[in-house]
Amino acid sequence: MYKIVLMRHGESTWNLDNRFTGWTDVDLTEKGVAEAREAGKLLKEAGFSFDLAYTSVLKRAIRTLWGTLDEMDLMWLPVINDWRLNERHYGALQGLNKAETAAQYGDEQVLVWRRSYDTPPNPLAADDVRTSYNDPRYAGLQRSQIPLTECLKDTVERVIPAWNDSIAPAIRAGKRIIISAHGNSLRALIKMLDGISDADIVNLNIPNGRPLVYELDADLKPITHYYLGDQEAIAAALQAVASQGKAK
Amino acid sequence: MYKIVLMRHGESTWNLDNRFTGWTDVDLTEKGVAEAREAGKLLKEAGFSFDLAYTSVLKRAIRTLWGTLDEMDLMWLPVINDWRLNERHYGALQGLNKAETAAQYGDEQVLVWRRSYDTPPNPLAADDVRTSYNDPRYAGLQRSQIPLTECLKDTVERVIPAWNDSIAPAIRAGKRIIISAHGNSLRALIKMLDGISDADIVNLNIPNGRPLVYELDADLKPITHYYLGDQEAIAAALQAVASQGKAK
Repeated sequence: MYKIVLMRHGESTWNLDNRFTGWTDVDLTEKGVAEAREAGKLLKEAGFSFDLAYTSVLKRAIRTLWGTLDEMDLMWLPVINDWRLNERHYGALQGLNKAETAAQYGDEQVLVWRRSYDTPPNPLAADDVRTSYNDPRYAGLQRSQIPLTECLKDTVERVIPAWNDSIAPAIRAGKRIIISAHGNSLRALIKMLDGISDADIVNLNIPNGRPLVYELDADLKPITHYYLGDQEAIAAALQAVASQGKAK
Repeated sequence: MYKIVLMRHGESTWNLDNRFTGWTDVDLTEKGVAEAREAGKLLKEAGFSFDLAYTSVLKRAIRTLWGTLDEMDLMWLPVINDWRLNERHYGALQGLNKAETAAQYGDEQVLVWRRSYDTPPNPLAADDVRTSYNDPRYAGLQRSQIPLTECLKDTVERVIPAWNDSIAPAIRAGKRIIISAHGNSLRALIKMLDGISDADIVNLNIPNGRPLVYELDADLKPITHYYLGDQEAIAAALQAVASQGKAK
């Protein structure tokens, strides 16, 4: 039996501003940094340790991992930064305020953009300053691999190969793994692990900065999963995530 | 032609206490963290960027690297944590105050222990709580690879393979490299690069947290080297390092 820990990054400046972030490389807030440290404390108290960490190439996930590892006295841990664990690319919505977008287009359209499994938002124009084409962290990729928008289905299709090629073999080799990533790249992993339908996965919410433990059998099928920490606070955090797209 | 950047970690709590540190995993002081950030600023202003970073498995070097990469907006950079870049193991002196040790044994004996090329301090006993045998970061090593003491020659003998097996091939493959390490593991690298004699290398001092640029030819032989930043401050820092072992 294996245990892996999944963690969505702590609160980011654009979580706070209620903006669509996607591949924009925004940082954590002070609260987000504190959430990462708290996660590290919870993991340490619960007796967890790790052999290998995965994260995206976006600093909100990396800084969350750093805070967690620092608190666990595991700063020396090998870390794999995999762009395939990045947040879902939000296309032309990147940078827009969620509530303003909802006020303009209606809650329902925003919910489609946020939560439809296979309808992506409008893409960025190829010459938009917001594209990732000239970002050195993607220099090793083909231009066709760098998205201009994604639906959750697109995100799933890049996350699964990261699992199959890299994460699952490491788990089978006996490595104890922590993955610090994003709401939608974690949805993609959980969809695959738990066999959640295209329709249901869009309603799965993951709170910021809370260690989510998956216990897996010898075939890497989930036996059970649970969040570490104060269960009432987690329920409240889940409710807050669910209502982010509302105009208010 | 290639450029690599070497950097000794920022001020640590035991630099401040003037204690022999070695493999003890002490943290940076606030000044040390600030030095790391300043190094990142200098590198950024001078137009440096990197493709790959090397550091030891000791947090003072890792946190220095983190501060530098953070300032350069390179948190996503792949990092190789190699125990062979650790500080020289200081044996039974680990944890002792340098000035107190000097007052007891005399400046000359301390200088031998600090600076003799091939005379190690007394080893830790195998059952000393200060050994690294049960530290998970060394779990992949044979017990015979984990030192109980080292002279600089021993450090050189583990640093050179890290250069030959890992760092030099990466440089030849075109990767722009930064190495965040320690006074003696950097001495070992510089001894090899510049062909410095056993007698002379012990007098080479490296200040904390200052980017040291080596320009190398196609055969990885040094053409020139220089510190980035305020040259007077660097000269003063070098003088301070040189006088650390004195009883005062």
